[in-house]
Amino acid sequence: MAKALPKRSENYSEWYNEIVKRADLAENSAVRGCMVIKPYGFAIWEKMQRALDDMFKATGHQNAYFPLFVPKSFLEKEEEHAEGFAKECAVVTHYRLKTDGKGGLMVDPNAKLDEELIIRPTSETVIWNAYKGWIQSWRDLPLLINQWCNIVRWEMRTRIFLRTAEFLWQEGHTAHATEQEAVEETERMLGVYADFVENWMALPVIQGVKTPGERFAGAVETYCIEGLMQDGKALQCGTSHFLGQNFSKSFDVQFVNKENQLEYPWATSWGVSTRLMGALIMGHSDDNGLVLPPKLAPFQVVIVPIHKSPEDLAKISEKVDPIINELKAAGVSVKYDDNDNQRSGWKFAEYELRGVPIRLGLGMRDLEAGTVEVARRDTLSKESRPIDGIVDHIKILLGEIQQNIYNKAMAFREANTFPVDTWDGFKEQIEKGGFILAHWDGTAETEEKIKNETKATIRCIPLNSIEESGTCVYSGKESAKRVLFARAY
Amino acid sequence: MAKALPKRSENYSEWYNEIVKRADLAENSAVRGCMVIKPYGFAIWEKMQRALDDMFKATGHQNAYFPLFVPKSFLEKEEEHAEGFAKECAVVTHYRLKTDGKGGLMVDPNAKLDEELIIRPTSETVIWNAYKGWIQSWRDLPLLINQWCNIVRWEMRTRIFLRTAEFLWQEGHTAHATEQEAVEETERMLGVYADFVENWMALPVIQGVKTPGERFAGAVETYCIEGLMQDGKALQCGTSHFLGQNFSKSFDVQFVNKENQLEYPWATSWGVSTRLMGALIMGHSDDNGLVLPPKLAPFQVVIVPIHKSPEDLAKISEKVDPIINELKAAGVSVKYDDNDNQRSGWKFAEYELRGVPIRLGLGMRDLEAGTVEVARRDTLSKESRPIDGIVDHIKILLGEIQQNIYNKAMAFREANTFPVDTWDGFKEQIEKGGFILAHWDGTAETEEKIKNETKATIRCIPLNSIEESGTCVYSGKESAKRVLFARAY
Repeated sequence: MAKALPKRSENYSEWYNEIVKRADLAENSAVRGCMVIKPYGFAIWEKMQRALDDMFKATGHQNAYFPLFVPKSFLEKEEEHAEGFAKECAVVTHYRLKTDGKGGLMVDPNAKLDEELIIRPTSETVIWNAYKGWIQSWRDLPLLINQWCNIVRWEMRTRIFLRTAEFLWQEGHTAHATEQEAVEETERMLGVYADFVENWMALPVIQGVKTPGERFAGAVETYCIEGLMQDGKALQCGTSHFLGQNFSKSFDVQFVNKENQLEYPWATSWGVSTRLMGALIMGHSDDNGLVLPPKLAPFQVVIVPIHKSPEDLAKISEKVDPIINELKAAGVSVKYDDNDNQRSGWKFAEYELRGVPIRLGLGMRDLEAGTVEVARRDTLSKESRPIDGIVDHIKILLGEIQQNIYNKAMAFREANTFPVDTWDGFKEQIEKGGFILAHWDGTAETEEKIKNETKATIRCIPLNSIEESGTCVYSGKESAKRVLFARAY
Repeated sequence: MAKALPKRSENYSEWYNEIVKRADLAENSAVRGCMVIKPYGFAIWEKMQRALDDMFKATGHQNAYFPLFVPKSFLEKEEEHAEGFAKECAVVTHYRLKTDGKGGLMVDPNAKLDEELIIRPTSETVIWNAYKGWIQSWRDLPLLINQWCNIVRWEMRTRIFLRTAEFLWQEGHTAHATEQEAVEETERMLGVYADFVENWMALPVIQGVKTPGERFAGAVETYCIEGLMQDGKALQCGTSHFLGQNFSKSFDVQFVNKENQLEYPWATSWGVSTRLMGALIMGHSDDNGLVLPPKLAPFQVVIVPIHKSPEDLAKISEKVDPIINELKAAGVSVKYDDNDNQRSGWKFAEYELRGVPIRLGLGMRDLEAGTVEVARRDTLSKESRPIDGIVDHIKILLGEIQQNIYNKAMAFREANTFPVDTWDGFKEQIEKGGFILAHWDGTAETEEKIKNETKATIRCIPLNSIEESGTCVYSGKESAKRVLFARAY
């Protein structure tokens, strides 16, 4: 047997790394901070992409593709945006290599670009430059575009899935005739993200807006969804930005409105990334490995035969084949692992590690008794069930597991969300972890001081939270509502 | 009315550019040689991706994702590969910008990378470096991986879709225990490509192998599919490479075989790109615009109401609604264009330009008569049909159109494929265009001379062509079979 996983309670960080590695999700590449997403990990990401893409299209968006390269001059056009991204840019300066005369290659000094190109850290500038040609009249609005692509931000401290130099994401970029429409779009897409993370990833999130200090560089307002990981740290799962007219003005995009006047359109942008893979892993997994919600599992059911001879295997397979066909017909993805190179015990451990929601075990005694062993990954429980009707049972069970994983994460969050009213209480609780709901005086100064003293940041000002007057947990000044604090990834 | 398209026969190149622009497929971006793929063009590419991805998965492949960056030292490891790609590489040399003190940004000289990173021009090196950790035993083989991603090759002369500095593609990278298995895989994927291009894109292709001079840099054998465009030039639509043990040796990847001996695995790689969009446009379109095979059309049917008042429109819509529902239920994608900002005549021209396979027109007289006007994009023919049974008619018609577009392209190719036996005949025919089947003596010298004198290249040595002895069209030396010549994109 392989070595047991590190325990969450003992070394959370190592536990996370080992799950990523042993469930075969991803690995670090030879290039600093860049990851390789392995087939099993990528299959989960593909399921996420498909679900999100369907949701984007159902809300009227179309996909397009814009260049990888951002001319340096584009980045300079929106000042805050430039400041926010300049420090972590991969810069292309040359377009050719040549032989170095020593059997190797060197950059050809004669192939220097006139203007350096940045690998996109986000695409507002490139896209708004294109929109200049796309938007002339109110008839061209709203323009609702999404792009799936790779992104590079030269982060200094990287962590697989959570913060990598290159990552995959989608970025929506929309243009609207009125401020109100753009704000509605920003909120609509935040809602789509919350819907996806809660109903597909089975992870409850808090929806809110960022403080000015935590806003996207170039945004007027940044909305976000925040999840709570099992170590009590927060993870930002997605953001949706109301960009006002910042980019339409920087790129001089105007449209003729119905009154025949020139106006600058109002913009939004919104994105989620492969970071969600990190949230999925840290939100649900246990000391036995990955736990996947059925809706995102590359295969939802694995069937493992338990046999001693090829003849036994043939008998089991004969019983299993129609079950597989029935499951597939019902839209359930299933893998039959009759590979003879591995023992069934090894397989049980392997599929547990990989988070397969349901495992069916079938041996000769089961055949005689007309039963099958059904093991649930989420509860680690097993029971013997009649083979007759097993497909209906599985269909119901998959829904139950999806719901149970969500309920468990929700119960964890509820047990780890703390209203705190004193500074001593705040400092004590932040060391223990969890979400803290506390009053804040609304100033950047206080936000900064709290961050410096405790490493806690304001994750968001929750939407629809109850107005409740109180006093700032740090400064004692007046406050109208509680905000959400946590240490975060 | 908008200006008519340039005619194919008068200015093929301008005709192509105008279709790309006016059918709203793509446009050049501000970055030299990089394109923006617009929503309508991208919707076609998405359909291509989905079909190909399903075919790859049906042949046992899994998707994964590898880094964008290739360390310079990786490229150096396989000599021919390095030579082939060094001259067109975008090179990242720095990882940070800083303010230049004049309100702009500059490259931060303190953020120079120790080793330059190349934006992937193809991923053999990055992937085989990863495979070193993935392949230990014969049990790990075959390893069948595919990646969808962006690629950068700094081409000097670019042409939208056909040759761009950045393009989108998929690249398959497989590893096998034996040479024979790898060759079989190379040929299997060539077959998948031919199947896709013929049965989805409706474009007949010649399957063959490249001469040594036209091989992929680092391959032992390059297979390809070649299509004939309407101007008589060839377009390479996809390649599948047998890489031998070149990359496993360069990256020192070995596996323990069943006899417990260390061996180098055998490799393949294969790819198709957004270049296929160029083939699709140039293969079928006419002087009225784009012609799309139904299987790849973003919407297969457009319904245009012809009305003078809102009341008329309401009556038409009432009749159309159940047809739309029936079409959707039958898996037919349909758009109902009841937008009142444009006249029906403008819409007719627009959907013709965009290549929508079937257009239904419905006016008040049709309502009374219980008919609908059915217009086919491929033949430009129209007929009045009873509304009753229209959905069944459309389902059959879509299949007919798909087949007819293929037949037309096949007839064109047959009419433009010429066996040529004399050098004068060769020079004469190559000016007229088309595929030339001619004898070649098998030497690189002759291939080079023919290319220099006529700009014709050997597109491929066709698979399964009849052995037929003859004499080389250029040198007069002996030859065992004809090869395929053409001028090419």
